[in-house]
Amino acid sequence: MDKIVMEYRVPYADTDQMGVVYYGNYLTLFERSRNELMRACGYTYKKCEEEGWMLPVIHAEVNYHSPARYDDLLEVTAFVQSQKGVRLEIACEVRRKGEDRVLVDGFTRHCFVSTKTFRPVPPPDAFLVATGAK
Amino acid sequence: MDKIVMEYRVPYADTDQMGVVYYGNYLTLFERSRNELMRACGYTYKKCEEEGWMLPVIHAEVNYHSPARYDDLLEVTAFVQSQKGVRLEIACEVRRKGEDRVLVDGFTRHCFVSTKTFRPVPPPDAFLVATGAK
Amino acid sequence: MDKIVMEYRVPYADTDQMGVVYYGNYLTLFERSRNELMRACGYTYKKCEEEGWMLPVIHAEVNYHSPARYDDLLEVTAFVQSQKGVRLEIACEVRRKGEDRVLVDGFTRHCFVSTKTFRPVPPPDAFLVATGAK
Amino acid sequence: MDKIVMEYRVPYADTDQMGVVYYGNYLTLFERSRNELMRACGYTYKKCEEEGWMLPVIHAEVNYHSPARYDDLLEVTAFVQSQKGVRLEIACEVRRKGEDRVLVDGFTRHCFVSTKTFRPVPPPDAFLVATGAK
Repeated sequence: MDKIVMEYRVPYADTDQMGVVYYGNYLTLFERSRNELMRACGYTYKKCEEEGWMLPVIHAEVNYHSPARYDDLLEVTAFVQSQKGVRLEIACEVRRKGEDRVLVDGFTRHCFVSTKTFRPVPPPDAFLVATGAK
Repeated sequence: MDKIVMEYRVPYADTDQMGVVYYGNYLTLFERSRNELMRACGYTYKKCEEEGWMLPVIHAEVNYHSPARYDDLLEVTAFVQSQKGVRLEIACEVRRKGEDRVLVDGFTRHCFVSTKTFRPVPPPDAFLVATGAK
Repeated sequence: MDKIVMEYRVPYADTDQMGVVYYGNYLTLFERSRNELMRACGYTYKKCEEEGWMLPVIHAEVNYHSPARYDDLLEVTAFVQSQKGVRLEIACEVRRKGEDRVLVDGFTRHCFVSTKTFRPVPPPDAFLVATGAK
Repeated sequence: MDKIVMEYRVPYADTDQMGVVYYGNYLTLFERSRNELMRACGYTYKKCEEEGWMLPVIHAEVNYHSPARYDDLLEVTAFVQSQKGVRLEIACEVRRKGEDRVLVDGFTRHCFVSTKTFRPVPPPDAFLVATGAK
């Protein structure tokens, strides 16, 4: 599973009265890029849930270097930072399209959990195959 | 079921770069006041769902007269505007605390639906009793 | 200014515990499509504000026919429903990509307002030219 | 500036299809509690901005131990974790009212910035006095 880059156009809804994207909204942006990362590897998160696995977030960190603004066309990069046992970390970087500078970055830590028991379970084989780990 | 008035303090998260509460966020405020309206009549929406009824929104209207702003302490009034068969309409008015002027008002139309069949069903007796309709 | 169609992938963030897109989030979707409508006519809303006009929403209506769900790829159609004096109405329709059925539709009514005086003003010429009204 | 505890009732809007509060929404909850923390010390964030200071978030961390759910009455505790020069860290803990167990905790790191120059500036005297640092 290589890194993916998705585009995102900032709506008014994402801004706050400082004239920039509200800090909490980047976590939704991170989620959007995770969805595309899994889609790119051929095993969508939707399918993941349908087959009995969830990936709740157990930790999140965000670094705010410089603000994104209304109508910016952003590029959000996502990639697996680490995967070990039931733990998975996905890193994200937000840039303005065509610029090198990272505006915001961070990562989320997830745990593979059964949708039936809500307890940690090993990742599905299809996921490991799709991500090249198996 | 009389009208209820709930207080709400506007966070930065609700504002947009115009320096006012983003227009879409009032629908969440309407929902908060509906929850309190049902709690006040002794039959919470949570209990409603636990007992097999949902109240999805099928229509919403909002009138924006004047903007609410960051840190405003709002008063949101909610009351049943009409209830007939499986249909329920709840009206909402948003004011600044201590002021008469209505900043935003509107209503939502709901349909009583079974959580099992997802089809329209008559409202629960407990709801009708609680609201004084039975 | 003809109608535009924009695609939108539903994130988890937009869903609620009913397993569908939360009713308030469609107003953000409406805004996204309005932005693209104005971009398509060559006069973005960002430019509109830079040149001294705002388009606050004064009324919104939404009809919820059928729910959109997580990971749905939606198509949102937007078009000018009416424009008269300082008033502008933009209609929106939400479908699943490749399907005819309208899941959600509605419209927003706007007023051209000066960013300096916050009072109603005639729409900018550039807007009228771009939309073919002049 | 001691710790404050604020109550918050979870609306449907905050939930996602996992039936729990969406992970990104806790950052809004953190913000709500920061607002009350500053209000409690007699120097609201609104006044802070009016007098020329902003407190943008430069880093955020959240630990998700256990989920909050629809209609939960939460207690959010906020307190200053550290303040040194232009940096301020505010920690938050989320519990269900009447329970000891922490559902979610974390902190945000802020930088005092001038609303005119957007550059780091020392915190206002009124803030230092209000918080007992001066």
